Amino acid sequence: MKVMYPGSFDPITIGHIDLIERCSAKFDQVVVAIMLNDSKLGTFTMDERLELVEKSIGHLKNVEVVIGHGLTVDFAAKMNCSVLVRGIRAVMDYELELQQATANRVLNPNVETLFLVASPKYSYISSSVARELASYGADLKDFVPEFVAKELYERMRRD
Amino acid sequence: MKVMYPGSFDPITIGHIDLIERCSAKFDQVVVAIMLNDSKLGTFTMDERLELVEKSIGHLKNVEVVIGHGLTVDFAAKMNCSVLVRGIRAVMDYELELQQATANRVLNPNVETLFLVASPKYSYISSSVARELASYGADLKDFVPEFVAKELYERMRRD
Amino acid sequence: MKVMYPGSFDPITIGHIDLIERCSAKFDQVVVAIMLNDSKLGTFTMDERLELVEKSIGHLKNVEVVIGHGLTVDFAAKMNCSVLVRGIRAVMDYELELQQATANRVLNPNVETLFLVASPKYSYISSSVARELASYGADLKDFVPEFVAKELYERMRRD
Amino acid sequence: MKVMYPGSFDPITIGHIDLIERCSAKFDQVVVAIMLNDSKLGTFTMDERLELVEKSIGHLKNVEVVIGHGLTVDFAAKMNCSVLVRGIRAVMDYELELQQATANRVLNPNVETLFLVASPKYSYISSSVARELASYGADLKDFVPEFVAKELYERMRRD
Amino acid sequence: MKVMYPGSFDPITIGHIDLIERCSAKFDQVVVAIMLNDSKLGTFTMDERLELVEKSIGHLKNVEVVIGHGLTVDFAAKMNCSVLVRGIRAVMDYELELQQATANRVLNPNVETLFLVASPKYSYISSSVARELASYGADLKDFVPEFVAKELYERMRRD
Amino acid sequence: MKVMYPGSFDPITIGHIDLIERCSAKFDQVVVAIMLNDSKLGTFTMDERLELVEKSIGHLKNVEVVIGHGLTVDFAAKMNCSVLVRGIRAVMDYELELQQATANRVLNPNVETLFLVASPKYSYISSSVARELASYGADLKDFVPEFVAKELYERMRRD
Repeated sequence: MKVMYPGSFDPITIGHIDLIERCSAKFDQVVVAIMLNDSKLGTFTMDERLELVEKSIGHLKNVEVVIGHGLTVDFAAKMNCSVLVRGIRAVMDYELELQQATANRVLNPNVETLFLVASPKYSYISSSVARELASYGADLKDFVPEFVAKELYERMRRD
Repeated sequence: MKVMYPGSFDPITIGHIDLIERCSAKFDQVVVAIMLNDSKLGTFTMDERLELVEKSIGHLKNVEVVIGHGLTVDFAAKMNCSVLVRGIRAVMDYELELQQATANRVLNPNVETLFLVASPKYSYISSSVARELASYGADLKDFVPEFVAKELYERMRRD
Repeated sequence: MKVMYPGSFDPITIGHIDLIERCSAKFDQVVVAIMLNDSKLGTFTMDERLELVEKSIGHLKNVEVVIGHGLTVDFAAKMNCSVLVRGIRAVMDYELELQQATANRVLNPNVETLFLVASPKYSYISSSVARELASYGADLKDFVPEFVAKELYERMRRD
Repeated sequence: MKVMYPGSFDPITIGHIDLIERCSAKFDQVVVAIMLNDSKLGTFTMDERLELVEKSIGHLKNVEVVIGHGLTVDFAAKMNCSVLVRGIRAVMDYELELQQATANRVLNPNVETLFLVASPKYSYISSSVARELASYGADLKDFVPEFVAKELYERMRRD
Repeated sequence: MKVMYPGSFDPITIGHIDLIERCSAKFDQVVVAIMLNDSKLGTFTMDERLELVEKSIGHLKNVEVVIGHGLTVDFAAKMNCSVLVRGIRAVMDYELELQQATANRVLNPNVETLFLVASPKYSYISSSVARELASYGADLKDFVPEFVAKELYERMRRD
Repeated sequence: MKVMYPGSFDPITIGHIDLIERCSAKFDQVVVAIMLNDSKLGTFTMDERLELVEKSIGHLKNVEVVIGHGLTVDFAAKMNCSVLVRGIRAVMDYELELQQATANRVLNPNVETLFLVASPKYSYISSSVARELASYGADLKDFVPEFVAKELYERMRRD
């Protein structure tokens, strides 16, 4: 089975990497799709995010990373992925994800969404928390890989 | 009983129409109030929203559509509605609605808020999801009436 | 509009009375239905509950109290109530109520369920909490009417 | 991928069947495991449940039905399933499922749990609701297959 | 400050111990109160629970363990504890705890309830999960201390 | 024990004051920290907020008010507070607070977060609701102290 793990990965966190590793162990092929969102300016450019994700998951042979655009279900179908994988941490996540997953099935009944529960030890991690902490110069070692932390500090430094 | 169903209706969705029809079947008179929110620029103007709502519910004889302003409870009292009706889809909705309903009772104890559960088959629909999908050119037939979809495509087209 | 407020009322609490008063103020007629549940033995008999409810709401002219049996939607239809009213306190309540309300609409699309938010000041009250406190001899004045407290102490006394 | 869909199926509902069909369409092999729970007496015996499940999913070639015992993760491993599939309807479901899924990963890190969102149109269905409705003689056609309804009426009839 | 950490501890888990250690580090004195619940038969007797808790927290000098009875707020006041401490894991916990905490403040405004968030790595642990796993002979090392596991296996063994 | 109650207090509400009074009654020293958030422009300046908070809690001898900056856990440590106190109203609050509290323990394991449940009678109050109501000229007496209401009306007046 070929699955897609879509997200904005701005930037990739230790929580994302854990989920990608778990997908890599269970599914034949995993496509990590960094979805372009026109309405939201990111901290990193799409190309920078791609580079950071690729560097983070280079050890996983059945995982490829792509930049996606358009509707997620359409992009998944185009990439021959009939399954979307999403990680959920808490109830608030779940509510939004449920609405999205249901809308996606209405848009394309052939694409299913499967949910994985985030490891509790990573439940406090998100890209936005990492960005905020970086702006305060906090230690990011429990949030993102070291080379991501380095890039993040540079971008979030308050002058 | 004369009830008010307030909202921003930017634009009206199939989910809204289902709720208005259910209200129309149970209550003597239903006032659909498109509330002006100064702090949020909409996709449609107030007059455009009014037109789309009126076109959507023209078949319901005991429903009138108005543009509202000021505090919702005050506007309801002004329109002689002592009951506000709100649809809820999911827990997150409910939490915000509960806080709002409680604040409203503090502001005006004579105005009650009644909640109706959205039909499960429409639980994935919201104006914001419809706007986002329109920006991707997705098929909107399961989200908004056809004439609303047409207007929405025009406004959300990415050039 | 004639509405039904169903429940087990074992026993009636200050929270129930607040909701019945609010219904009485908004709806033409209110039927308080003490629903028989064969699978659950109560603390009070159906007749005792009826007496306690009647004593609690005697001041409300448009409210009648009955003992109900069978499916709630069927009983509502039989009593010419096309609307069920339910109070909700918290998210857990809401989840169960939503499932019930949706099942009810499948069973009888003519019966709608309307929800009222419990007054925050009564949000901690439930019949089961009142029963438990009575078993410890706690002061029940903020939970149930005085004459209910008296009956409850007698039944829950630990010998 | 060979996945296990565990549950008590007492009895199987239209919601279960929808999930099994969706699993059947995405995964190579699906094992429906009716898990024995010593501490809970069911309405149907294990053999009766097996028969009702088999009759319900006979049209799906890659699905087998078994009676399971012991710890679910152990039974999954024994059946060569490294993935458990669970359907979730609402937030309360999710909370319990999350705790269970996390405990399962602690017990056996090789077994992952994947969640599918129940179709909104079946979100009100559960075995326990079906049993309760049967005891009132309600129409079960929107809850369970016709031959299940027939068996359920017989068992739940109140004499 | 002298605080009470009440519960049933049937039996004590690694999650409980983590919370007691965190309380011990912050508060002057901690009273662990094993509350007697007449309506629920436990797996361990009150004296056995006391022994297991004492053995688990013997290394903490400012913690004492007692068997409590009656209303928790009353027992706290009697023990000169004006603060109750409760651990919360997830939203469902929180809802029940909130209702309980609010009822407690109504019963005795001098007793406050403070909540600590359970460590995510222990979020899947509860006494009831440990009991269930023991009945299947599962490895309990990530759930309870070794000497508790030993006792639990003996009691939960299925003959 | 010296605790910190951090927040943005833009402006202080009756709900905040209730929590500060309850902290003042239980803890030796309470530091109210108005945390500077570079990314969010407030309605009141930091100095104005400080003045309003000080005016609101002048009657509490063991409470001091400061303007904080940087990471909350770092600022707490710097002020010799090893405990953060947060009020929670509802489940949505709780989810965000839980994630924050867990992240804080990862950043500094010596700083614990304790939660207090907001009094139900103040559960509908928040600074943002107060600001919105002020913009409509609503009566704020059940939301903020009178002198805060006066300032708020002036700033939120729509010209």
